[in-house]
Amino acid sequence: MVNEDKNSVGIVETRTIRVIEPANPLPLVSGKTLAPIDVAYETYGTLSKSGDNTILICHALSGNAHVAGYNSPKDEKPGWWDIMVGPGKAIDTNKYFVVCSNFLGGCSGTTGPCSINPSTAKPYGLTFPIITITDMVRVQKLWLEKIGVKNVLAVIGGSMGGMQVLQWAIDYPDFVKSAIVIAASPRLSTQSIAFDAVGRNAILADPNFAGGQYHDQDAPDRGLAIARMIGHITYLSEHTMHKKFGRTLRASENYKYDFNSEFAVETYLDYQGQRFVERFDANSYLYITKAMDYFDLKKDYGSLTGAFEKAISRFLIVSFTSDWLFPPAQSKELVDALLANGKDVSYCNINTPYGHDAFLLEPDTLGNLINDFIHATRHPQEALAAQACLADRDRTKKVTMPGRARVDYALIESLIKPNTSVLDTGCGDGELLANLMLDKNITAKGIELDEKLVLACVKRGIPIIQHDIELGLANCSDKSFDYVILSQTVQTVKDPEKVFSEVLRIGKKVIVSFPNFAYWKARCQLLLSGKAPITGELPFHWYNSPNIHFLSLKDFDSFCEKLGVTIEKRIPLHKNRLSPVKLAANFFAEQAVYVTSRP
Amino acid sequence: MVNEDKNSVGIVETRTIRVIEPANPLPLVSGKTLAPIDVAYETYGTLSKSGDNTILICHALSGNAHVAGYNSPKDEKPGWWDIMVGPGKAIDTNKYFVVCSNFLGGCSGTTGPCSINPSTAKPYGLTFPIITITDMVRVQKLWLEKIGVKNVLAVIGGSMGGMQVLQWAIDYPDFVKSAIVIAASPRLSTQSIAFDAVGRNAILADPNFAGGQYHDQDAPDRGLAIARMIGHITYLSEHTMHKKFGRTLRASENYKYDFNSEFAVETYLDYQGQRFVERFDANSYLYITKAMDYFDLKKDYGSLTGAFEKAISRFLIVSFTSDWLFPPAQSKELVDALLANGKDVSYCNINTPYGHDAFLLEPDTLGNLINDFIHATRHPQEALAAQACLADRDRTKKVTMPGRARVDYALIESLIKPNTSVLDTGCGDGELLANLMLDKNITAKGIELDEKLVLACVKRGIPIIQHDIELGLANCSDKSFDYVILSQTVQTVKDPEKVFSEVLRIGKKVIVSFPNFAYWKARCQLLLSGKAPITGELPFHWYNSPNIHFLSLKDFDSFCEKLGVTIEKRIPLHKNRLSPVKLAANFFAEQAVYVTSRP
Repeated sequence: MVNEDKNSVGIVETRTIRVIEPANPLPLVSGKTLAPIDVAYETYGTLSKSGDNTILICHALSGNAHVAGYNSPKDEKPGWWDIMVGPGKAIDTNKYFVVCSNFLGGCSGTTGPCSINPSTAKPYGLTFPIITITDMVRVQKLWLEKIGVKNVLAVIGGSMGGMQVLQWAIDYPDFVKSAIVIAASPRLSTQSIAFDAVGRNAILADPNFAGGQYHDQDAPDRGLAIARMIGHITYLSEHTMHKKFGRTLRASENYKYDFNSEFAVETYLDYQGQRFVERFDANSYLYITKAMDYFDLKKDYGSLTGAFEKAISRFLIVSFTSDWLFPPAQSKELVDALLANGKDVSYCNINTPYGHDAFLLEPDTLGNLINDFIHATRHPQEALAAQACLADRDRTKKVTMPGRARVDYALIESLIKPNTSVLDTGCGDGELLANLMLDKNITAKGIELDEKLVLACVKRGIPIIQHDIELGLANCSDKSFDYVILSQTVQTVKDPEKVFSEVLRIGKKVIVSFPNFAYWKARCQLLLSGKAPITGELPFHWYNSPNIHFLSLKDFDSFCEKLGVTIEKRIPLHKNRLSPVKLAANFFAEQAVYVTSRP
Repeated sequence: MVNEDKNSVGIVETRTIRVIEPANPLPLVSGKTLAPIDVAYETYGTLSKSGDNTILICHALSGNAHVAGYNSPKDEKPGWWDIMVGPGKAIDTNKYFVVCSNFLGGCSGTTGPCSINPSTAKPYGLTFPIITITDMVRVQKLWLEKIGVKNVLAVIGGSMGGMQVLQWAIDYPDFVKSAIVIAASPRLSTQSIAFDAVGRNAILADPNFAGGQYHDQDAPDRGLAIARMIGHITYLSEHTMHKKFGRTLRASENYKYDFNSEFAVETYLDYQGQRFVERFDANSYLYITKAMDYFDLKKDYGSLTGAFEKAISRFLIVSFTSDWLFPPAQSKELVDALLANGKDVSYCNINTPYGHDAFLLEPDTLGNLINDFIHATRHPQEALAAQACLADRDRTKKVTMPGRARVDYALIESLIKPNTSVLDTGCGDGELLANLMLDKNITAKGIELDEKLVLACVKRGIPIIQHDIELGLANCSDKSFDYVILSQTVQTVKDPEKVFSEVLRIGKKVIVSFPNFAYWKARCQLLLSGKAPITGELPFHWYNSPNIHFLSLKDFDSFCEKLGVTIEKRIPLHKNRLSPVKLAANFFAEQAVYVTSRP
């Protein structure tokens, strides 16, 4: 309830504004036109004087403009993303001017199929023109101009909201400083189109649908409820469904042997269906799912890479491991297309059991990610400096990452020329890249598998892709970075040849570091004790080492020769000293740094 | 067409037989009774004199008794599993007497809700009693007795057919020599119940349903078609849907901007829905899906392990990697419960993109598996001997498995006492186990990850579980095997401590073999050349070795000490000689075999 919630935006009003007058209809993608168009919207927080703090939220299929707070003191539930939006919350209304509108075709105040068709004075129903995501975004742009917003710091949306975010970044690049795309897709999968089609079939099959003109009579509630039930199954993961309901029966331990809803999950679906028909319009459901089905950036722009050619926003793409409706692979397609364009893109695949609905249920990880990304977008130097702890940065200090020892960062930094582009594969929390950005003004990109470290990089404002380097980097073009760093990684991957070849393809120079297995202590230990060596740089037992390949400087020399790789620099190192080993390097060096290249 | 198909059973007739007379109704699980009951069935091939060659096929939700061949020369399509059943096919009608009946509650000849209710002289409709899988199997048993079948060599079924197979093996253990359970489950997942519930909702919401009494009027075709569409989406993997339809449009390259079916996948679903209503009864759909929802071996028997206590059949459990309706994890639950009971069970997770429907589309791998499993069930000694190539078995010959060198099998064989139980983890094609079965009469069980090798073991008649040993063996009880063999594996797994501890838990004795990393040639190579050693037992380069841990005899000694493991025997070996290394073993041995145990 409103009074119990201290971090709530409190009582808010959904306002309505006319953005298209009857005299000047809006041309739609379908070729038809539409007028008038009214937009229902809410705002929270205050627009800054310089107008640089607007955050636009795009809602999903069944959402509306009421994102946060309460429309009336009697409301039992707040807006649909209240866990994320409010004073002190991840999208902080003390800092930002947060706005959201019900999209075109919706049924919560914005013009849609249940609005009155001025030419018949009856609700449009199926005479409403088919609309697309592009049309929705165009109407949002008109609305923002009307309410005095001249650019947005971030556009954020999940699911179908994420599709709108993508369209925003493509259609209005100058207007959008950053784009946060959650659990979305460049186009629906075949399976999702199929589910949408079955849902629409259920509505159209309901005799109450009456060709869409059901407004004076019983609405097609059973059809709409069935469509909603199908949707609900796809929004949850099987894991969540199992945890929530299992095979529990509603009322008894024993089967009733009839066809009434009996399993708890059946009752849940009945309830969700019932709640939905009370607040949603069947025609809107048809139009909105059709707009989703039609959304296809590949088709519209010839290729996904082509679609993003003119985008200039910073991008944050987020997916959820257990989402099977908009699976992570679809988000990765977006990331690949943005990478291929050299755009500023970060990607995080949040580990969660909640399925597609996680974007409504994951305030912690997702909230931090959004908050940090927006902050770093607005105050990039501050984000970079704060995290790099400039004051007490000790360049000779050995940095130890969990699970592996990193070669001295200072040496690698010394090898990199200013104003170049650098990809750090396995970049950890981004310290090396942050230092390089501050000291040498490089263009940075990081790759890291660990979710926590990805978050740390986002906080610094470093473009970071959550990715397993073992899978290759197919969508980075050849020689697209001046330097690629492969630090203390080559001996930990399953297929060193594949990984090394891949980084040599995309980097003009590749800086590799690894522990030297032929270090004299290792040799002597094996020779004299007959046991697997344990040294400073090889500190693990044979059975718990992350190092799954063992190589020496000589081994790496042969490896480079075999692969036709040029060794530009070969720097054998002691454990803690920056000065290279001068004599009998393969015997005295504990580790090595190589600068390599392949034409 | 019938004439073009040389391996077809040709024209077959669906016959009907009365198994329950009006005077003696069948008591059902629900507490109600039913009479009369007629069963529609087909048979192919000839029952052998000894009556030992019957194969019972149980059909799935939408199937019927017409498995193979053609009911009429005009039929365009043969029976639903014609790819699998026929002369010379995987289920060879030249060898076996193959039988299938339409199940109770169906709509293809066996008594069901569209049969005439004798007390009203009208079709039952919703007055038909709720039936369960147990009831269906009971009726099948009565039918088999009527047609003179006294036992079955194999019961086979996929999906809901697999549920019936499980119930057969539980209810009539003496009757069933082997049970082949394909893409099934001990109970539906929450998600599957939800999909079933939505399908039933669509039928019940159709105004033509008329409380189930639609027989003299228009049937609830739209509702039934929607239920079928939902089903179809769940039977296919997203991958298959994408390959088959993608986002292709039916008629044009451009969108039509209306609500007619437009994407190819929509047209496909329309077609499938339409075809289904022509041949299926809506009431049957309700009753059959309810029977599936109610099937729950855990609930019925207290636990899944309890369910199989009295089963004595050989079991073959098969799942498909891309099946998300009956995912492999559910088959694994069955396997675990059977393992915990010490039953003769084999498991194969067939790698296929076809989803749940793979059981209708995978004649090659699945066919071989079924054919070989049934043959080995009927002729165990023949299967074992044929494959072990007894004639030219050379016990001192080095056997090299793809990707790894196996220690001499003869030595391990010599360590194992007759009439014991042996688990071979990573058993390859089962040669060692086959020899032990033949020579020492052991009870064998194999674990192997590679699908081809699993098939080879099934062909020999060895109970084989396709499983990654790294995941542990939680459902094998403590000390449930006299010996567990871990041959040339400990150095290739990610977590040797976990794997070794697990095999020590379930085996009274554990026989471990591995290459010796402290072999003198390896030591000298590292010392003198400063490169990663390459020897006979360590023949790989550092970057392509399957060995991801390196250990010596001394390392393993320390490892055993750390883990509190007793070393009963320690046999250092040369590469190709059976006689142990006598002096300075850690220096001169290329490999080692240990017999270990932990109380």
